[in-house]
Amino acid sequence: FPSRLPNVGTTIFTVMSALAAKHSAINLGQGFPDFSCDPDLIQMVNDAMLANHNQYPPMIGIEELRQGITQKLANLHGHQYHPDHEITITAGGTQAILTAVLSCVSPGDEVIIIEPAYDSYRPSIELAGGIPVAISLEVQRDDSGFVQSYQIPWVDLENAINTKTRLLIINTPNNPTGIVWTNSDLERLAHIIRDSNALILSDEVYEHMVFDGANHCSISSHPELVERSFVISSFGKTYHVTGWKVGYVAAPQAMMSEFRKVHQFNVFTVNSPMQYGIARYLNNPMHYLELPRFYQAKRDFFRQGLAETEFKLLPTPGTYFQCVDYSGLKNWQSNLNEEDFCIWLTTEIGVAAIPVSAFYQDKTESKVIRFCFAKKESTLSEAVKRLQGI
Amino acid sequence: FPSRLPNVGTTIFTVMSALAAKHSAINLGQGFPDFSCDPDLIQMVNDAMLANHNQYPPMIGIEELRQGITQKLANLHGHQYHPDHEITITAGGTQAILTAVLSCVSPGDEVIIIEPAYDSYRPSIELAGGIPVAISLEVQRDDSGFVQSYQIPWVDLENAINTKTRLLIINTPNNPTGIVWTNSDLERLAHIIRDSNALILSDEVYEHMVFDGANHCSISSHPELVERSFVISSFGKTYHVTGWKVGYVAAPQAMMSEFRKVHQFNVFTVNSPMQYGIARYLNNPMHYLELPRFYQAKRDFFRQGLAETEFKLLPTPGTYFQCVDYSGLKNWQSNLNEEDFCIWLTTEIGVAAIPVSAFYQDKTESKVIRFCFAKKESTLSEAVKRLQGI
Ligand SMILES: CSCCC(=O)C(=O)O
Ligand SMILES: CSCCC(=O)C(=O)O
Repeated sequence: FPSRLPNVGTTIFTVMSALAAKHSAINLGQGFPDFSCDPDLIQMVNDAMLANHNQYPPMIGIEELRQGITQKLANLHGHQYHPDHEITITAGGTQAILTAVLSCVSPGDEVIIIEPAYDSYRPSIELAGGIPVAISLEVQRDDSGFVQSYQIPWVDLENAINTKTRLLIINTPNNPTGIVWTNSDLERLAHIIRDSNALILSDEVYEHMVFDGANHCSISSHPELVERSFVISSFGKTYHVTGWKVGYVAAPQAMMSEFRKVHQFNVFTVNSPMQYGIARYLNNPMHYLELPRFYQAKRDFFRQGLAETEFKLLPTPGTYFQCVDYSGLKNWQSNLNEEDFCIWLTTEIGVAAIPVSAFYQDKTESKVIRFCFAKKESTLSEAVKRLQGI
Repeated sequence: FPSRLPNVGTTIFTVMSALAAKHSAINLGQGFPDFSCDPDLIQMVNDAMLANHNQYPPMIGIEELRQGITQKLANLHGHQYHPDHEITITAGGTQAILTAVLSCVSPGDEVIIIEPAYDSYRPSIELAGGIPVAISLEVQRDDSGFVQSYQIPWVDLENAINTKTRLLIINTPNNPTGIVWTNSDLERLAHIIRDSNALILSDEVYEHMVFDGANHCSISSHPELVERSFVISSFGKTYHVTGWKVGYVAAPQAMMSEFRKVHQFNVFTVNSPMQYGIARYLNNPMHYLELPRFYQAKRDFFRQGLAETEFKLLPTPGTYFQCVDYSGLKNWQSNLNEEDFCIWLTTEIGVAAIPVSAFYQDKTESKVIRFCFAKKESTLSEAVKRLQGI
């Protein structure tokens, strides 16, 4: 039978994690911590299981967790969502993305994505029968031709929006580039999108990883944009439990009611003990307020080590990913394309990374790869040692 | 924006559970146990969390669990699936159903469902752009006009299959009617479907609830059918943990590889500690082999109580649902349609049930409602007392 996703293989994250395991490489590819979560959080989940929270929770998620999320969003971004009508708990950020897309994109609708983009966006659009319209972050290079930074492609974005545009997917802080949208970016987006019918899906799963004193500017902080947006986040990223698969989506009631129609026939509902455990843990805001400092220390430690290699470091204002340009390496491997370079790095140097080209449909090459620094200091040390030996 | 599911409201299970909670009624509506799972199973999940199984498990599910499932299926049904290529762990049965449908149904394809049918089948088909073709179980009535049993509509099924048929969804043991397919039913199905291109999705989440000494005849036991089938089950049902949302799908490699393309961009992967806990628990086959006896005792206890009411009991060869015909009740409420009768039963009698009409797109009325007997004996006793008082 004909494939619904003929151009799709196994996601790069799975491929590189498998390769890393096979070669006992340090896995700085797929984004997940190698340290354990807070034992208190585990205790809270265990308490929930022992308290018999093991049957179907409400389809939209448990009340305690929805309320905790609305409080957090109100405190951080000043927007008061209604916990009953505007928040739904999901089985992670990825499930929220597919469900949101299926709920609002009809066959023939155009959906704008900005590459490099997380690899689930495009197939989600295709499964809905929508047409992905990809524009690219502008790549700025220094005088020697090394990639220096990425910029939002405002002109391309404005040109891409038309009457068929149903949805625009943005991602801040951005995986893989680490760039974060500012308030004035949101203002500019509001201006561009004002006269269109486009909705926004804002993937904010790295919301608590923004560095150097900057703030995460959530779509939910913008009074105009919030009225047309799905805002998505993930407790897996925030609480170091990527394997628990609990996230959420916030959206105005009309959008949320369509989201829930699909959600109830997708996963129906989400793991109950994890919801209760996370709801209790969320009562203490310190658990997320301390994250920027926590990850900035890791970022700075990792960058310091990489400074003594021939990799060119790109700025990392947000996320737990460090991108580097390897085109200056004085060995023949610098001629490899990104995927082959990552395979070489994994199998020969013992450090797995992700090619940024995998975030482009046409595999655009810029000789930039992505490392994940959500790792113990000892892991980062050992990885740096290996990379310094290239 | 236009709804993708214009005819969909909130699923009946959520509606009736909310009504039951509001009126403090005994909830025999939505299908879930009101007793706790085995404390050993909770301990095994807690052990997994403490052993740091809190990050992304493999996209297809952990090896231990996939191997346990293949062993179980080989022992029970004599078919040897390959654990790496033919099994994927899902976030419950419902997620497996949507994902399977999205992976093989293209816009314009016909998908046959047999009503009364679980309410996720039709929207799953619609989200894929497919065309649901509904046929109905034949309703047999006794001389007084009471519903007596349901039969597979072989002639309608044969007539429904054509060159556009991509998929046939079957469900054995059947929710809500409790009927179970026999080996000769599978043989007949194989004969009917042999010359078509139709795949099969077999929803077998009640596989371990088959009574009176009969066996569950899985599609995976049929050498010819298994080669064209997705077989879906749920640990939530089997281990009394409906809120954990862990299930699986088994299918031949070519079908599974398409399934995984969608799965990885839907939930990506499934809760890790629950997978490890369930994998260990699955090592002891007694945990599922004892289920028929366990639930048959509940069924018989509940039926005995209901025998002293004016409800007519339908046979329950499988599932944990008991259907009854209320048309013989000697009060005016017997004139209500099924949904209104269930609302009355919930709000006035204090026992929630599910109208079987909710399992038909056109709300076909037969004055039959469904009770869930996966409850403590004390709960069933109290429910029976209230129902006897009508
Ligand atoms: C869902 S696997 C990918 C994890 C992740 O967010 C990343 O590595 O980019
Ligand atoms: C997913 S909620 C429905 C539970 C169930 O299987 C049923 O009650 O029929």
